[in-house]
Amino acid sequence: MGRWVNIQHYIMKRLILLSALLLGLSFSTFAQQALWGGQNIISPEIRPDNSVTFRYIAPKARTVQLTGDFLTNTSMCVDMVEKDGIWEYTTEPLPSELYCYAFVVDGVSVRDPNNVYMIRDVASITNIFIIGNGQGDKYKVQDVPHGSVTRRWYNSPVLGFDRRITIYTPAGYEKGKEKYPVLYLLHGAGGDEEAWIVFGRTAQIMDNLIASGEVKPMIVVMTNGNPWQQGAPGETKEGFYKPSFRMDRLSSTEPKGTFVEAFPDVISFVESNYRVIKKKSGRAIAGLSMGGYHSQSISMTYPNTFDYVGIFSAGGISDEGKDKAIALLEKQRDNGLKLYWIACGKTDFLYEGVTNYRKQLDEIHFPYIYRESEGGHIWRNWRIYLCEFTPMLFK
Amino acid sequence: MGRWVNIQHYIMKRLILLSALLLGLSFSTFAQQALWGGQNIISPEIRPDNSVTFRYIAPKARTVQLTGDFLTNTSMCVDMVEKDGIWEYTTEPLPSELYCYAFVVDGVSVRDPNNVYMIRDVASITNIFIIGNGQGDKYKVQDVPHGSVTRRWYNSPVLGFDRRITIYTPAGYEKGKEKYPVLYLLHGAGGDEEAWIVFGRTAQIMDNLIASGEVKPMIVVMTNGNPWQQGAPGETKEGFYKPSFRMDRLSSTEPKGTFVEAFPDVISFVESNYRVIKKKSGRAIAGLSMGGYHSQSISMTYPNTFDYVGIFSAGGISDEGKDKAIALLEKQRDNGLKLYWIACGKTDFLYEGVTNYRKQLDEIHFPYIYRESEGGHIWRNWRIYLCEFTPMLFK
Repeated sequence: MGRWVNIQHYIMKRLILLSALLLGLSFSTFAQQALWGGQNIISPEIRPDNSVTFRYIAPKARTVQLTGDFLTNTSMCVDMVEKDGIWEYTTEPLPSELYCYAFVVDGVSVRDPNNVYMIRDVASITNIFIIGNGQGDKYKVQDVPHGSVTRRWYNSPVLGFDRRITIYTPAGYEKGKEKYPVLYLLHGAGGDEEAWIVFGRTAQIMDNLIASGEVKPMIVVMTNGNPWQQGAPGETKEGFYKPSFRMDRLSSTEPKGTFVEAFPDVISFVESNYRVIKKKSGRAIAGLSMGGYHSQSISMTYPNTFDYVGIFSAGGISDEGKDKAIALLEKQRDNGLKLYWIACGKTDFLYEGVTNYRKQLDEIHFPYIYRESEGGHIWRNWRIYLCEFTPMLFK
Repeated sequence: MGRWVNIQHYIMKRLILLSALLLGLSFSTFAQQALWGGQNIISPEIRPDNSVTFRYIAPKARTVQLTGDFLTNTSMCVDMVEKDGIWEYTTEPLPSELYCYAFVVDGVSVRDPNNVYMIRDVASITNIFIIGNGQGDKYKVQDVPHGSVTRRWYNSPVLGFDRRITIYTPAGYEKGKEKYPVLYLLHGAGGDEEAWIVFGRTAQIMDNLIASGEVKPMIVVMTNGNPWQQGAPGETKEGFYKPSFRMDRLSSTEPKGTFVEAFPDVISFVESNYRVIKKKSGRAIAGLSMGGYHSQSISMTYPNTFDYVGIFSAGGISDEGKDKAIALLEKQRDNGLKLYWIACGKTDFLYEGVTNYRKQLDEIHFPYIYRESEGGHIWRNWRIYLCEFTPMLFK
């Protein structure tokens, strides 16, 4: 690329100065900033001791409260204190984690206008922040080689339409020659193909744990587990509709089949589009809640396909279908697999169901590892489970 | 894949019923929904005549106003009217477009909690919606083949670190064999490698115009034009800092060079990682504002590299560097190129600078096409320019 060397430094310098002219843009932008929500305060401010100060400018508000998953009672609000129109609250020092929060202004929940980092859960948007020096470091972007994250579309012959899918390939994939193992990672009810990559911080977790040598380089395939849906809200021809949690659709088989029935379409797509190990020892499947249930169901329905199964905050067999399910599980057990990992929080509302499922597995001597954590049916646990599950894969 | 056929439908049905149990998740989620911001109203509601109704629940607010770029005066707020705690405003029928808006509650700008679709501009977040049946249809996800969008990292030897980059590959790229032309698409001051794909709706525009046959299939490479920055806020090791518009950094050469000097690193990366046409006739470069300025500067500094140049709302030569810049432009002119396209809005604050630049080009008989639009230095124009520029490429 010899021609690139001939760079005219003088010209460059002039041109760069001229580009400052374009700052007129910034002035016009700034004139509108107050209108659009910008404020000259910092919130949240993470202090050296990991306490966090939240601030909100609202001179005319009567009450401003803070709610967040770092509070002892997460359905609780704490009062913020006003001075000169700025409402403020400082937490105790917080354990290293990724947290969500919102303000409640005169009874109405609002986003923090000074924090552009947010995640969506069904129709709710919340601000997030990360406390480092511990577990939270796994969720941060670190100075390590970064994988690629691709949003693309695949065809599902079973469902009869194209569907959106999110794929993480580890650093070096594009340039290498070797074949990689694949983790299929499934979201819960209300989620979609964006859930694990956004809420679950999957790319950051994989980048960090691969860089540290704890996890083998692998491809992570994040599917959309809602068989009636082509992709996440706003990413399909349905446009910008208001997302909602539709119970009637959870048990629906529209348009043409269930996600379990359509899962072979995903594997076919991945194995014909990526440099992957096309055998049982190169496939893992895991998911949270509905996705954990899908992982159980898919891995037993195709009982010689996955050597690694992760069931996060889920698992169970209904009485009605018990005989056939047990027969499939016995087949999966007899075919053999390397890891069947069940994780659940002590206060998860599905705890009893998971306990019953474990008893059913015990009865048929189905080998599994059980991991019980603190907490309930929350993303905090699912990120932790991903950090614990992936180091056990493909080794 | 014969083993996939053996699907136990009965088991499936039982399992799916059981998955309804997981809806406990939804109930606990819904209990918190009011706290997190969910409300049982629709906003914005696009009516059949393309008028739009906005709604905001705030029983205790004294005033709620609406601001948006569809209002005659975009620095203006209009008053919303309250009934039973719900504030409402309905616009006139709006032309087909993508629009931004915010509410102003007791003087404080807030997001619409019933609209999860948002874009970030520097540190400000605004809600968006699209009015169809016209230009806006190009910005919607349509029922057409979809390309892939990848966020990945490349190394820049000139700048001395890894940098983030966003790449659109057209539908069929992964399965095909042919080589594609490349459009390098550059953001403005305050933007980053997310600007064109989010604010600019580049993936939707390319999908739609390629599907209609108006645009040749091409790869679109969206760079980060801030040479001191590895990637967009929140996507680098700097973590979740508050983005700001730093004038001092616009003219900075830190750490090791300018974006113009470092641009060959981008081309090297793309041409060694993608199936592309590695010659002038297969390369286009375009950008808005600072990115338009970069496009001018890069295309003349490497004056035999691009056959197609698009300068949106930018362009100019300073008096000081004039002689050397003219010499480079003359070289670019003599080398020949197929399209030099300058576009500017009638009320753009850079209008005079663009006019002067055109005069300078006229003086040296540098051939270009000039497109003058309504409006100013706004994303609405840059999306329109992209829709007009890309059909002229690689033909």
